[in-house]
This record gives sequence, C-alpha cells and structure tokens, in this order.
Amino acid sequence: MKDISRNLTMLCDFYELTMGNGYFLSGMGDKIVYFDVFYRDNPDNGGYAIAAGLEQIIEYINDLHFDDEDIEYLRGKGCFDEGFLTYLKGFRFTGDMWAIPEGTVVFPGEPLITVRARAIEAQFIETYILMMINHQSLIATKASRLTRAAKGRIISEFGSRRAQGADAAILGARAAYIGGCHATACTITDAAYGVPATGTMAHSWVQMFDDEYTAFRTYCEIYPNNATLLVDTYNVLESGIPNAIRAFKEVLWPKGIRKCGIRIDSGDVTYLTKKVRKMLDEAGLTECRIIVSNSMDEYIIRELIRQGAEIDGFGVGERLITAKSDPVFGAVYKLCAVENNEGEVVPKIKISENVGKITTPHFKKLYRLYGRETGKAEADLICVYDEEIDDSEPYELFDPEHTWKRKLLTDFTAKPLHEQIFKAGEQVYTVPSLDDVRAHCAADIESMWDEVRRFSNPHNYYVDLSQKLWDIKHGMLQARKGAKKD
Amino acid sequence: MKDISRNLTMLCDFYELTMGNGYFLSGMGDKIVYFDVFYRDNPDNGGYAIAAGLEQIIEYINDLHFDDEDIEYLRGKGCFDEGFLTYLKGFRFTGDMWAIPEGTVVFPGEPLITVRARAIEAQFIETYILMMINHQSLIATKASRLTRAAKGRIISEFGSRRAQGADAAILGARAAYIGGCHATACTITDAAYGVPATGTMAHSWVQMFDDEYTAFRTYCEIYPNNATLLVDTYNVLESGIPNAIRAFKEVLWPKGIRKCGIRIDSGDVTYLTKKVRKMLDEAGLTECRIIVSNSMDEYIIRELIRQGAEIDGFGVGERLITAKSDPVFGAVYKLCAVENNEGEVVPKIKISENVGKITTPHFKKLYRLYGRETGKAEADLICVYDEEIDDSEPYELFDPEHTWKRKLLTDFTAKPLHEQIFKAGEQVYTVPSLDDVRAHCAADIESMWDEVRRFSNPHNYYVDLSQKLWDIKHGMLQARKGAKKD
Repeated sequence: MKDISRNLTMLCDFYELTMGNGYFLSGMGDKIVYFDVFYRDNPDNGGYAIAAGLEQIIEYINDLHFDDEDIEYLRGKGCFDEGFLTYLKGFRFTGDMWAIPEGTVVFPGEPLITVRARAIEAQFIETYILMMINHQSLIATKASRLTRAAKGRIISEFGSRRAQGADAAILGARAAYIGGCHATACTITDAAYGVPATGTMAHSWVQMFDDEYTAFRTYCEIYPNNATLLVDTYNVLESGIPNAIRAFKEVLWPKGIRKCGIRIDSGDVTYLTKKVRKMLDEAGLTECRIIVSNSMDEYIIRELIRQGAEIDGFGVGERLITAKSDPVFGAVYKLCAVENNEGEVVPKIKISENVGKITTPHFKKLYRLYGRETGKAEADLICVYDEEIDDSEPYELFDPEHTWKRKLLTDFTAKPLHEQIFKAGEQVYTVPSLDDVRAHCAADIESMWDEVRRFSNPHNYYVDLSQKLWDIKHGMLQARKGAKKD
Repeated sequence: MKDISRNLTMLCDFYELTMGNGYFLSGMGDKIVYFDVFYRDNPDNGGYAIAAGLEQIIEYINDLHFDDEDIEYLRGKGCFDEGFLTYLKGFRFTGDMWAIPEGTVVFPGEPLITVRARAIEAQFIETYILMMINHQSLIATKASRLTRAAKGRIISEFGSRRAQGADAAILGARAAYIGGCHATACTITDAAYGVPATGTMAHSWVQMFDDEYTAFRTYCEIYPNNATLLVDTYNVLESGIPNAIRAFKEVLWPKGIRKCGIRIDSGDVTYLTKKVRKMLDEAGLTECRIIVSNSMDEYIIRELIRQGAEIDGFGVGERLITAKSDPVFGAVYKLCAVENNEGEVVPKIKISENVGKITTPHFKKLYRLYGRETGKAEADLICVYDEEIDDSEPYELFDPEHTWKRKLLTDFTAKPLHEQIFKAGEQVYTVPSLDDVRAHCAADIESMWDEVRRFSNPHNYYVDLSQKLWDIKHGMLQARKGAKKD
C-alpha cells in the first residue's frame, strides 16, 4: 500500500500548547486525567452513526513528536518556558486509550474513545482525535444512509473534486467505503487503502472526438470489459443511447461480451432511465447497467427508486463527500475524571445551563445488550469502569432522564464495546483490515432493529447508565446545586 | 516555514487515467486542448466569491510525477497499456496556465483558471485543481462574509476539530486568513503559512484546578501579557467574571498590565456581554476585551451586533471551517477549445437542456472595468483571447441573456484579471506572500459597490461577453439547433 502519511503533531489548537506549558509550570503536567470523546446528535436526524477514523488516530499517536523546526517555531512565539520546550523535544504519548472499533454503530452520549494519560499529553491530542473522528464518522454515517437508501444497488463515491481538501477526498473515500459504498473515483485511496477505484469517461472524452459514436466506439475498443459510456453530452435518447447501442453491438458483441453500462449525469432521471431501459432491452442489451450521477443523496435515491426509475448504480459526489445536508459531526473531548495522589479515580463533571451539555462523569465502560434469541441490539449501557454486567441474571434498565421508565431485560448477552488501543503508550490493538471494518459495519447495522435504522423519526435507541453511574452523576449534580445555594 | 507538502499526483479521478490511456492509444494524447475552471453560483446566495487555492495548485503541478510504486499499482489494475505506463514514468506538466490571483473578488461564469496543454496532461490535473479551488474559495468567501458582518471586530478561526480532515483544517485556516480572519487556533497553519496562531485555555484548564479563581490566577501569572480567561465553566456572572476581575486586579495590575480578555462560550451572548461589560467597566477593567465563541456565523454575528451585544472579537469554529450553511463551492472544469492541426484555436461548447449549464466556448481573457472617478468595479468583460479593450473609447456592455439591456461605459479603465502562471510547463508567476494576498482581497472588496457586497439580495454584478465572443457562442448554439432538426 502506498504510504501517504505525514507527521501532523503540530496540527493542534494553540491553546493545547499554552495549557500544556501552564500545566508544566504549575507542576500538574504528570497528573493523570481521563478524557472522553462523545457526540450529542446523530447527523441528519438519523437513528445512529458509524464510528470511523481510529486507524488514523493510532498512526498519529504512534508518530507524535516535535522536530527541531517545531521547537524553534514555538520558541519564536515568545510565550513558552525553555523547560517546557526541552520537555517537548522528548514528547511522546505514554498513556492508555480505549475505543469503539471502526465500523461500529454508535449513539449520542457514548464514549467513543477514552484517553487516560498525563495532563499535557491528554490535552495535547484533543484536536487531531476530534478532527479525525468527526470527519470520518460523518462520512461513514452518510454513506451508510446512502447505501441503505439504494437497497443493494452499487454506490460509487465520486466527490474528490468537491471535497474540502485532500484528506477530505482521500479519507472521505475510505470512510464512505466503511459505511457501505462499493467503490471510489479517488485513485490514491485505492493505492493507499485498497478501496476499489473505478471510472470511465467525462464529457470531455466525447467532445474530444468528431462525433459521439466515434468516441463510444473508440472507448469500447480500448476497454471492452469495462465500457460504461456517458450518454448525455448531446441528447440521451436521440443520440447517446442509439450511439451506445451501436458501439456495444459492433465492438462488444463480436467479442462475445454482453456486460456493459451507460451513465446519465443530467436530466429527469426517472423518465430517462425508464425510456433507456426499454431501448436497451429492445436492442438485446439486457445486461447493460444504468448508472446515474447528478447531485445524488439518500433522499433523491429513495425517491427515484420509489418512482420506479431503472437504475443499477449511483455515482455520488458532493453530497456524500461533504455530507452536505449536515456537514458537521460534533464530537467533543471532555474531562471526565482525574486521579488523586493515592491513584484513586475522582470523577469530574461539566455543568451547563443547557441540560443536554452536562457531561457524564467518571472513567466508564460500555456494554451493548443483545436479545439472545433475536440477536438484535436492545440497549447500550454505560457503567463505571469497575462494574461487570452479569448477563445470566435479568437486568433492569431505566431511562436516565425519566427514571420511572424501566424495562426488565431477560435472556440477553452483554458485549463490551471498547477495545484497549494503547497501554502505557504502546499500541496493544491490531488494526483490522479495511474490508473487515466494512464487513463489521454491515453486520452491526444488521443487528439493529428496523425502527432504529429508518430515515424519518427513528426510534431513540436506549443508551442508559448503570445504577451506580447514575447515582454518582446525580450526586455530583445535587452537590453542585447545594454549593450554589450557599 | 515548515514544509508540510506531499506528493499528491495520485489524487486524481480514475477516469482521468482511463481517458489518458485512451487518448494515448488513439494518438490524441498530444492534441492541444483548453479547459476552463469556473463556478455557477455564489455561496450563501451572496454577491461574490473570493478566489483562493492557486499557490497549492502551483506546488502540485511543479511536483507532478509518478513514482515506481504508482506505476506498479496502475499496472495491477490490468487496464493500462504498457506504452502508456512508460509514458507516465516521464509525465510532467508541459502546458500553459492562466489564473486570477488569489484573494481576488470573482463572479459566476468567469474563467478562474484556464489550462492549455496536451490532452492527457490537461485532463489529468482536473480533480486536484477543482478540489483546491473549491475548498479554499469556499472558505475564503465564507471568511469574507464573516469579517464583513463583524464590522472590524477580530475574527479568529477555531474550527480544526470539526474540519473535514487535516487539509481542511490547515488550508481552511489559510483561506480564512485570505478572506479576512485575523488569526487561527491551528498551530501548524502558523508554522507552515504564517497565519498567526492564538489560543489560551479550554474548560478543562479550569476544571483541572481545585477552584476557578486558582485556575485564573495561575494563568495570569504564566501569561500576564495574553490572559484571556474562559469564564463560563461554572456560571459567567456569579463566578466567572468575579473570579476573573479578582485575578486581573491581583496579578496583572501590580505589573502595570491593563490589557486582558475574557471569553464566553455558551449562553445568551447579548444578555451576558452587556452585563459583563458593565461589571468589567465598573471594576476599572475598561481595556478587558470580550470574546465570544459559540456556533457563530455571519448571520448570528450581524444579529448580535444589531442587538448591541458588547463584543470585541469572535472565535468561529465549525460554521466557518466547513462553510456549514453551504458547504460546496461548485467549480467545474470544462473543455472550451482545441487546436487543430494548423494550430488554430477551435472553440468547443457543452450544450445542456438546462440553459444555466451551457458553457461559454473558446480561449478567453477577462477584464474588470473600473469607473475612473469612483475607482469602483462596474463590470467584468469576458473576451476572446486575442481581443484588446481600448479604455480610451466608450464601450457598450450588454446582457448576454437579455441583449436589449445595454449600458454605455465611459471614463473607465480596463484591467486584465488573468496572470500567466505556467508557460510551456515552467512557472512564470511569482507567488505573492500570504499577507499580500490578504491585503489584495481587502482592497478588492473595497473596490466593489455596497450593492454587490450586501448579504441579502445583492445586486447581480455584470459579467458580460464581448460582442465577438457572444457572436461565436450564439453561432454555435444556432448551428447545434440546426443540426438537431435534421
């Protein structure tokens, strides 16, 4: 695989360095702290999201270091202590990390990643971790929506030219593959990550020849096994399809090749594809696939299929690669605990007037509970790190907001969702292949009830707290309220 | 400056390679062709856009090459001719390029970049050029809207963590600076491009200490000259501001320092900032700046200022770095001419049922016409490449759609907007410094009438065709229409 990595240690928010210098000077740099990555709302008002980006976070952390030029730059800012700059020369990540593996279906409020590390280290890696999780989870989630809307039809990611920079194109295509897309137009994502790159022709190919038929014929001669002809440069029904049929019959049929395709990039897709299907079938080209590719998203795809459009595959560009309808995956990175001098874990909470922004304190673990008979996910349960769920006994879930809403779960299995990724700075996790991640994602979506997966007004999947964790959180909120009254 | 570039030759759409191989095998690879980059609609229904991204395109083109690993990967795809792969080993850009410099105010339909090159080369660079123009122009345009809404107040770009990948963060911060932002939180963009990086503290700094006052006091002691305290971890008015005032007075005043700041990241900004300003002023902290930073965009900023909120600066995150309200800048790359065997430039046009998608054919040049007295831009004029505009004579402009709409321009100066960037593959353009680009952008916006700059229902700036170009385009449309009737 092509290596396109580069050192991005300096891709941090400047305040991580000013705070780091401050912790260093206040003797707090080695204090052990816990940060959680979590998000608050599913994109597009959907019922779930897909976690993605972990592999690149692991690479980033393994490669963390400041070179002399970086130190020189920081010295030039005139606000950092020389002792801190010397410390940065030997800087690396020495902490622990737990994460939900890529491709997993996740829900708001869950710790996607938990970092346990010295304060300077844990604070420093905030920006890159968030950026990577936010970007790739955003695109993987969108791709999951698109592929589900397409009901088994092929979806190719076509958006590099409209991506927000090179990594948005490259890793966006990677994330789209995790979420269910079948291919990409982005060549380097194939070379670097093995996402199958495909592509045939642009309008300019057709324009470069004296006439459309010659353009099609030439293409079929060069690529008899992959002839997907773009038929809308002049007029789909009057020119594109008749010329394509002629080229297929004259070039491919003598070679015994029946597989071919046409692509439509403009116009009334439902009307055109129905007409085109009929023309192709009547010409004996029943194996000719119809691909469409003009400003597609999950809503348009669903509507086209509902209208009976004759489509075998979609090329999806800007609306996937930017997640245009909701382009921000708002994961945040919040302090949830610190260790005191005795090494005890002391939970921390961030209060807000906005109830939705109150954090869940403590070093936590996360279970997914599956019905033993159905195999379907019934709820996720956030616990304190030292709790064990015994799935041989019934378990009573309750809504953390409306605690009178209770549900007794019997006959279930409890699966921990976190994997340990780093232990004392060493990677202890084997990164799965991208195809395994993609397969895990498909299986995970399959394990969700339809009510969670539906596009509009999905069922709110249960993400509950254990009684122990709820008591701690509630106690801290009460204490804070009491403190304010004084 | 830190070098963070990497070779992205392989960041291309796969069809550029299949077409390239096809041109190569059909003997069309060396045909000289012309492609234009242009866009169709201003983001956010605004009146203009800011061109950005050219510097990175120049770097990309200078660095274009396939290494052995790339060739091996392409061979493995099983669809490329060995002669073509050998050709790719020596591939570089040998053509010409003209472009509108970065930071220039631009309008729909204008050729932002024109490429004249051998067919394989011109086709190949499509994706990267579009991606870079689309991304950076999008963010520079958004930043221009934000800074104009802020009416002189400082805007800092804070969005790395929500950016769509590393380059979206890094080059997004660069583009935001071109468009008028004053600073960024993204450290690497300072190290690599000199955009001033700033930052002070997160909520976690405050939470890390036993109490808010100690957190503030410690920060003021370490950074007496750059103490901007985040005051909303617990309660802005009851805790944050009183503690900040105490820390400023106890730590900064004895040092004779009066400059300081507070930042509010949540809550009712208008209400809070008015109260806070009063509290600070009453404490004698009239030089304390108030910064706000919660989900800001140009609409919210304008509304806050209209409401009389007391704000000296804004931190703008996700809504700038993703251009959330309209996250796609839809520039396209279209064939506009080819050279025949005699070296004559033959215009090409792309017809569409959708009138807005019909291209303007030919190798073109672009003038901006300024009123000689006002210095204000009155219209842009797209001409055939060999036309000269004589601004010593009156010039009659006309609307290319409604040709009866005419305007006689007298007393104007005509300035060509294109610079030649590459000549026979050699860079002939000196890239200006980023600060010069930013200053050029500010001056260019200043040269526009208020009607063009306003947020809502801006005046449609005139982008007209010369009579000669209009005649050619109209003739080609007529000929096509005639051809279809046959």
